[in-house]
Amino acid sequence: MSPFTRQRSRSIAALGEVKLIIEIQRWLGTSSPKAPNGIGDDCAVLAGSPRDQLVTVDPVIFGEHFDEKIPARGVGAKLFNRNLSDIAAMGGRPRAAVVALAMSKDVKIEWLRDFYRSLANIARRHRVPIIGGDIAHQPTGLTATMTLIGESPKKRTLARQGAQAGDWIFTTGNLGGSRLDWHWKFTPRLAEGQWLATRPEVRAMMDISDGLAKDLRNLQPSGTRAALSAGLIPISRSAQQMSRSSKQPALFHALTDGEDYELLLAVNGRTKPETLQQAWARHSKLPLTCIGRFVKTRAVSPFADEIDLSTYHGFEHLR
Amino acid sequence: MSPFTRQRSRSIAALGEVKLIIEIQRWLGTSSPKAPNGIGDDCAVLAGSPRDQLVTVDPVIFGEHFDEKIPARGVGAKLFNRNLSDIAAMGGRPRAAVVALAMSKDVKIEWLRDFYRSLANIARRHRVPIIGGDIAHQPTGLTATMTLIGESPKKRTLARQGAQAGDWIFTTGNLGGSRLDWHWKFTPRLAEGQWLATRPEVRAMMDISDGLAKDLRNLQPSGTRAALSAGLIPISRSAQQMSRSSKQPALFHALTDGEDYELLLAVNGRTKPETLQQAWARHSKLPLTCIGRFVKTRAVSPFADEIDLSTYHGFEHLR
Repeated sequence: MSPFTRQRSRSIAALGEVKLIIEIQRWLGTSSPKAPNGIGDDCAVLAGSPRDQLVTVDPVIFGEHFDEKIPARGVGAKLFNRNLSDIAAMGGRPRAAVVALAMSKDVKIEWLRDFYRSLANIARRHRVPIIGGDIAHQPTGLTATMTLIGESPKKRTLARQGAQAGDWIFTTGNLGGSRLDWHWKFTPRLAEGQWLATRPEVRAMMDISDGLAKDLRNLQPSGTRAALSAGLIPISRSAQQMSRSSKQPALFHALTDGEDYELLLAVNGRTKPETLQQAWARHSKLPLTCIGRFVKTRAVSPFADEIDLSTYHGFEHLR
Repeated sequence: MSPFTRQRSRSIAALGEVKLIIEIQRWLGTSSPKAPNGIGDDCAVLAGSPRDQLVTVDPVIFGEHFDEKIPARGVGAKLFNRNLSDIAAMGGRPRAAVVALAMSKDVKIEWLRDFYRSLANIARRHRVPIIGGDIAHQPTGLTATMTLIGESPKKRTLARQGAQAGDWIFTTGNLGGSRLDWHWKFTPRLAEGQWLATRPEVRAMMDISDGLAKDLRNLQPSGTRAALSAGLIPISRSAQQMSRSSKQPALFHALTDGEDYELLLAVNGRTKPETLQQAWARHSKLPLTCIGRFVKTRAVSPFADEIDLSTYHGFEHLR
């Protein structure tokens, strides 16, 4: 469904700001607490907590992260889930969200209703109230920005920094081909991230949003090379499907397509990969695959089928 | 300065995302801590705190909140200060901010530099680090969204709810005519808001963003009428100046122009207005004016020059 309409009576211009905010509160229902703990005051009040807080912000933009082919509920899900994925990437627990909408006056009321109802569903599922937001006019288009606040895990926050030479490289799930539908249908790996943060052998973690080949550089310790084995990369069915039309190998899609929203982690090289995988299998049905190792820059390859990463690029924004 | 350029070499497209993020970190300098406490990880880590946290989100949008006549540093200041004003409105102390930018590829690097440097200046002045953000492409225009996290005052958070029949209505500063330049040059009333939150006679507070006549409804207790005395409204010089060209009375501008970013408060009716004002004068040179009173809906007017508020409307968005 297109987010826009030429019929004024079906557009937000027919409501105006005051009535639209009342509608939004109705659509959000129990997922949005009463002011001052929710929408309706200058700020939302969130209870204090002694633990480290995690803050992340990500938008969905019409013509960029979604178009008229994605249902409004899919757009809401994508917005919420990509922020949840950032909390998952540090092993955290999400606590509360705010949503700022900038949009033209011809946005369809029905579209917005489905969008907010989808936010409400996810808010309830994860017990993450939507405590505030903003709606504003912009000349054209639709940009929705969520800021999500979470809480660090009990033991420690898993950051991108921390990997060492010799560490194994693991990924959850299967990679590539997200553009087909995964990019708005994915599940953020919250429980998995929280579990991984309890494991002392996991040294660094992030989520894959711009493609494995590009994102991996953010985990890579200096003086090392990310040696990935081509045969170990878990390639999704969507990557294989895209390969047929793109004439590129499925591996290419697994390495360079963005929006996998899987977890990428570095694991102490003295651990046996199987030890972590066996413990994992008791908690999750998702694959957890060892795909390579950070080795010293000029070290001999541990794999006969090591991928030459210099030939792959992930998604580069704003070019 | 226009935020946009036709010369690709001067635009962000010439940099691309990765280099632009490095530039942004350089422009922000010491106002942006190192990851994971700042930009560079999936989330930013903010230290826990036992006090209630305040969360607010507000954007600035090209063609809506600013245009090419406002310098980029003014746009940055406006974005930061309107969020600070929301924290001030609850008596809070700002702690940390994240900024999400959605923009077309023809945004001028120089414009962005001035914008971020201005954010950095304000961040340093108020000791509010910019701990994270996002940059994303949107088909046209420029939308910058800040989420600001603050902390409740020691004693209590001043909400919009809490006023009672008989309460005095006060405002800080002078009202109206913000469009001339105040809307991007204003000072958020942080110290004032914090001081007011320590005063037990102050029962409810908010900032004036959509015009006194409209915003007042958010403080107004049910079963009451906001009786304002025309002669008591502190009218700004800008409102008088605008009155000359608009042919509307200056009072009209003071009541209906948006973006005053002054504090509006309800004060226990048993307090003498002078008592609060005398204590105030020891802390601030800003005017604190008693402009009226919440009286029972059908009560006789306490003022001979009571304003008929039903004839005034504030700024209605999205119409």
